[in-house]
Amino acid sequence: MDRDKFVKLAHGSGGVEMHKLIESLIISRVEKKKVEGGLGIDYPDDGALIPMGNGEFLVISTDTYTVSPPFFPGGNIGTLAAAGSINDVLMMGGVPLAALDAIVVEEGFPIEDLSRIVDSMLFVFREEGVAVIGGDFKVMPKGSVDKVIINTTVLGIARKPIVDVPREGDKVIVSGHVGDHGAVILLLQMGVGERVEELEKGLLKSDARPLTRLMVPLVEKYGDHIRAARDPTRGGLAGVLNEWAKAAGKVIVVDEGKIPIRRPVKDYAEMLGVDPLYLASEGAAVLSVDAAAAEEVVEYMRGLGFEDARIIGEVRGSERYKGYVLLRSTVGGYRVLEPPTGDLVPRIC
Amino acid sequence: MDRDKFVKLAHGSGGVEMHKLIESLIISRVEKKKVEGGLGIDYPDDGALIPMGNGEFLVISTDTYTVSPPFFPGGNIGTLAAAGSINDVLMMGGVPLAALDAIVVEEGFPIEDLSRIVDSMLFVFREEGVAVIGGDFKVMPKGSVDKVIINTTVLGIARKPIVDVPREGDKVIVSGHVGDHGAVILLLQMGVGERVEELEKGLLKSDARPLTRLMVPLVEKYGDHIRAARDPTRGGLAGVLNEWAKAAGKVIVVDEGKIPIRRPVKDYAEMLGVDPLYLASEGAAVLSVDAAAAEEVVEYMRGLGFEDARIIGEVRGSERYKGYVLLRSTVGGYRVLEPPTGDLVPRIC
Repeated sequence: MDRDKFVKLAHGSGGVEMHKLIESLIISRVEKKKVEGGLGIDYPDDGALIPMGNGEFLVISTDTYTVSPPFFPGGNIGTLAAAGSINDVLMMGGVPLAALDAIVVEEGFPIEDLSRIVDSMLFVFREEGVAVIGGDFKVMPKGSVDKVIINTTVLGIARKPIVDVPREGDKVIVSGHVGDHGAVILLLQMGVGERVEELEKGLLKSDARPLTRLMVPLVEKYGDHIRAARDPTRGGLAGVLNEWAKAAGKVIVVDEGKIPIRRPVKDYAEMLGVDPLYLASEGAAVLSVDAAAAEEVVEYMRGLGFEDARIIGEVRGSERYKGYVLLRSTVGGYRVLEPPTGDLVPRIC
Repeated sequence: MDRDKFVKLAHGSGGVEMHKLIESLIISRVEKKKVEGGLGIDYPDDGALIPMGNGEFLVISTDTYTVSPPFFPGGNIGTLAAAGSINDVLMMGGVPLAALDAIVVEEGFPIEDLSRIVDSMLFVFREEGVAVIGGDFKVMPKGSVDKVIINTTVLGIARKPIVDVPREGDKVIVSGHVGDHGAVILLLQMGVGERVEELEKGLLKSDARPLTRLMVPLVEKYGDHIRAARDPTRGGLAGVLNEWAKAAGKVIVVDEGKIPIRRPVKDYAEMLGVDPLYLASEGAAVLSVDAAAAEEVVEYMRGLGFEDARIIGEVRGSERYKGYVLLRSTVGGYRVLEPPTGDLVPRIC
């Protein structure tokens, strides 16, 4: 059997294999990749832009959430489905305006559980002022889908879309701790959730949340200085930085010691033999910001309640390491932070 | 065990049970149901409208396609996913402009099959001039989803959106034969596909196709006379007519003998004990048109290549039968055409 002839879990993990497959299977075969004057499927971000004709842009993003288990410390698939697509619109500089949801549920799923999931989703949309304008609802026979999956599409308006790539000299900023969501889902999928007291005590939970309160004022005030913004979901921080380094043709150098990672995330990742830099965050932002404004941006982010925001590295020119991410170790020396490959955690989002 | 506490197949079939569940579970709990000046989740159609500020409207529709089997005579899940969401935008009077797709596939699915599905989807979008501007791709572990499901979101622009309800005196027009898609999928799901020679010979196949070439010129020319337009998918013609009768507070009277149904659809439906008026079409339109223009509209539709377009009934005022659909039998007399209930064909679209 030729393994390359079948879809593998790695094809869905947001890493090298996925990008190769969707490039050959989809992107390269699309003739009309964008609406004139906008950005489309060949733009390496989670959303697309359509010009509105008045100088503003419609930002739109769609994602199907398949996270397993559907309930986890810190939220559920409904929280994630609303926050995730809101964040994709925010990362392009959009102000989220309206959403559509499409739910697929397995026959026999408890209506009470479905109700809790829908309530969590609607709560996020309501809190963020996002109208829910339409949707779809499908039931699949028992055994043909595992519990519930939700697609959300979020639309927003951007006056100053963030569509650049990082430039030489830029500082790389994170809004806070990374890897929380990935660590939680990994522990639950391994069946050890009940033995992890940090989950029980609320010391370790998914960070799934919308970043509206961070990104809308930030883009309003510092939009001209933010070259790129991403939420490090599938593939984690390592994934975002590698995509940026490749797109910019620069090297991104990051200080390992400056990356904020919670103690239990670090500990359990080490215990399980995974690198937390590849674990998904669902409530964090990574920014590439003009060096002259970077310190001010960090201060402003902290003032918005993101006290752990900080500069973790910078973008440099390099012939030798062009397209690579280098990690400056806490014990000295550099190592290449490889782009994500394989299937670290299936059904993470 | 209380059966009402669990999701049933009927909750996803587009009938009475589904409308009740999504009303209580979702629609009634959404605070902001539309963007100001537009139409949203409480509007009984498959799409939503957002005002563009220049008198035009953005039309947007999302649907997740779960059809089983994914390949069928007349197309595959890719054809259906593109055509279905295009048609939802068309039925609101929109000109389809851009699409996003979100694919979920089971680990182990043959890449060659996935490639055929994607090609079919992209072919439809390309032929209809619809840009594919973004998407998502997820893989679920073997056994956690049955093969492949696809969500598509299509955006369009409407100058004259079709947002009315049928009015007294309107004529009801269908663009052609109904029930083809439903009959094909039903036969395949019952495992008798190989014994049905009409499937083999191409005499019976899914009608899944985009209706751009019908609806765009029709709305351009007769938009002011078309009160309502729908594609009779889940719940079939009976579903659309019942929703209209209820929304309008009128009775819709339809001539059974005038409804175009192909011979094999009629025969196999009778053999299987189902009513073809409840079987899904994926390439037909039902219109409620101002009586004064109805004959002209039918002629125009025929000129566009829809030779089987015809008037099948009309909208009347009635205190007694308000909200009902009456079928005038070919052998004389009337009977109530009930709204769809139960789960006639799961995973039809």
